[in-house]
Amino acid sequence: MLARCTPVVFGDAGVLERVGRESHLKLPREIVSVDQPVAAGPSVDQPCVLDCQAVDARRIEPGKIDAACGRAAFDYVERAVQAALDHRVAAMVTAPIHKEAFRLAGIPYPGHTEILADRTGARRYCMMLTSEKITVSLVTTHVGLCDVADQLTVERILEVIELTAAAMARIRGREPRLVVCGLNPHAGEHGLFGREEEERFIAPAVAVARSGGIEVEGPLSPDTAFLPTRLGQTDAHVCMYHDQGLVPLKMLAFDTAVNVTLGLPIIRTSVDHGTAMDIAWRGKAKVESLVQAVLLAAKLAQAEAGP
Amino acid sequence: MLARCTPVVFGDAGVLERVGRESHLKLPREIVSVDQPVAAGPSVDQPCVLDCQAVDARRIEPGKIDAACGRAAFDYVERAVQAALDHRVAAMVTAPIHKEAFRLAGIPYPGHTEILADRTGARRYCMMLTSEKITVSLVTTHVGLCDVADQLTVERILEVIELTAAAMARIRGREPRLVVCGLNPHAGEHGLFGREEEERFIAPAVAVARSGGIEVEGPLSPDTAFLPTRLGQTDAHVCMYHDQGLVPLKMLAFDTAVNVTLGLPIIRTSVDHGTAMDIAWRGKAKVESLVQAVLLAAKLAQAEAGP
Repeated sequence: MLARCTPVVFGDAGVLERVGRESHLKLPREIVSVDQPVAAGPSVDQPCVLDCQAVDARRIEPGKIDAACGRAAFDYVERAVQAALDHRVAAMVTAPIHKEAFRLAGIPYPGHTEILADRTGARRYCMMLTSEKITVSLVTTHVGLCDVADQLTVERILEVIELTAAAMARIRGREPRLVVCGLNPHAGEHGLFGREEEERFIAPAVAVARSGGIEVEGPLSPDTAFLPTRLGQTDAHVCMYHDQGLVPLKMLAFDTAVNVTLGLPIIRTSVDHGTAMDIAWRGKAKVESLVQAVLLAAKLAQAEAGP
Repeated sequence: MLARCTPVVFGDAGVLERVGRESHLKLPREIVSVDQPVAAGPSVDQPCVLDCQAVDARRIEPGKIDAACGRAAFDYVERAVQAALDHRVAAMVTAPIHKEAFRLAGIPYPGHTEILADRTGARRYCMMLTSEKITVSLVTTHVGLCDVADQLTVERILEVIELTAAAMARIRGREPRLVVCGLNPHAGEHGLFGREEEERFIAPAVAVARSGGIEVEGPLSPDTAFLPTRLGQTDAHVCMYHDQGLVPLKMLAFDTAVNVTLGLPIIRTSVDHGTAMDIAWRGKAKVESLVQAVLLAAKLAQAEAGP
């Protein structure tokens, strides 16, 4: 990883030191903390911590949902976003946050993506999860299942198709092939189920995307869209709702998928797992998803910087 | 298969003869057709066709959606249901029907299950798809995604849990372990998404089932309910809607899953695929799902008959 980028952790040096000690993790070297936001480039030449001092390390109880920790997590995210907007870091990689800790702290965002969209002023954005075997991007995300259908529009679906096509072209280095899932069982079977969302919203968005030169098929019946043969021919699936994409993604790539927020003026990737409070500070968490998230962020930053 | 049961095809002998000839399939022997509904037992000792003569074989165009064929398919199903109700056959196995052909023929059923429920007077029934690796049963089936949430009740979810537990006990020969999926992303995260369907309907149904002695967990977050480790510990997943169950099922068991209708007074299994009109009469269709459906029907019939 160090050959590809220089990681800077936005967090509390005191917390990291205590975690390392108590979980008996071998830290590769002393934690180097910097007090001021770093400049990308020669001024930082080894992994370090930007010490936000947002929480008292001695008061933390591992695995306990806590308002102070929720507030601190929000602080880290905000400072990292600002550093990315100021071009002081080339990309941002996020660890999971705990939504209930956010709520206890009175922070009115359901997740990172919404904070990032708000702070960067992005109007067209979406969440994509990508791995070697399967990539899904989401038209709707953290909304109740009963609210999904009402949130579909031709414009939104087209937006997600376009953002996904652009991102996958960057990741694959060639024009990608996309699939768009229907909303209803059997993609509605010509209006038999649902309110013709396939005919009213999805098919028109696919038609516009195709006429714009994107290689995209759909709406496909969701239950056959993820068959092994189909997955092998597809670079990314555009999904109408959270679990339509995340059930198959996690089945095939639980430990390795990376979450990318598309459409932001900054590069942002994230792990695809939660906080796993039940194994907090035990030194047992798998790091694969975080490693993949850092590597993808570095790759996207390099693609953006150009050859 | 012949060691386990004697198959009787409810269909048109003329159509089967033409299909066999034109698709160059080697039929094992002459088609033996019987004109009257058969009695189970010694009077039928080899595979045969109950010749319904519901359609003119010469007029059929392979792969064309046709009202006459829809009407004939409905006729075969009705006659088979009646034979099963009359105990003239021990179980019923259905091939796929084409919903648009039904609609063209003016038949007001979205699928087999609804016909069967209606003709047998069943009030508590559900669809389950089962395979070696994964089994799912559905609280709602062929309804639009926007209508799913409104159809959930504690009673309906409990019914599906109970029907699934009883069927899996019969199939596995021991008490099964069930998982119930949530409806919303992350199972609603304590009411953050959706209308607390998990708290209002799913959790109470699970509690009643547990107090009735069923080993069942849930509501689980749908996106982690199908991880490989979880699948290995689970005999069946109770799913709130069609694609919540059928996406993972078809990913893992496309060619081998069997559809069972639970709660009917007759035993009924079915293939889990569609009509595949694009390869009609080419002799290319895979038979594995039909074979599995017949074998499971025979197994269930034997379990019902007792040791």
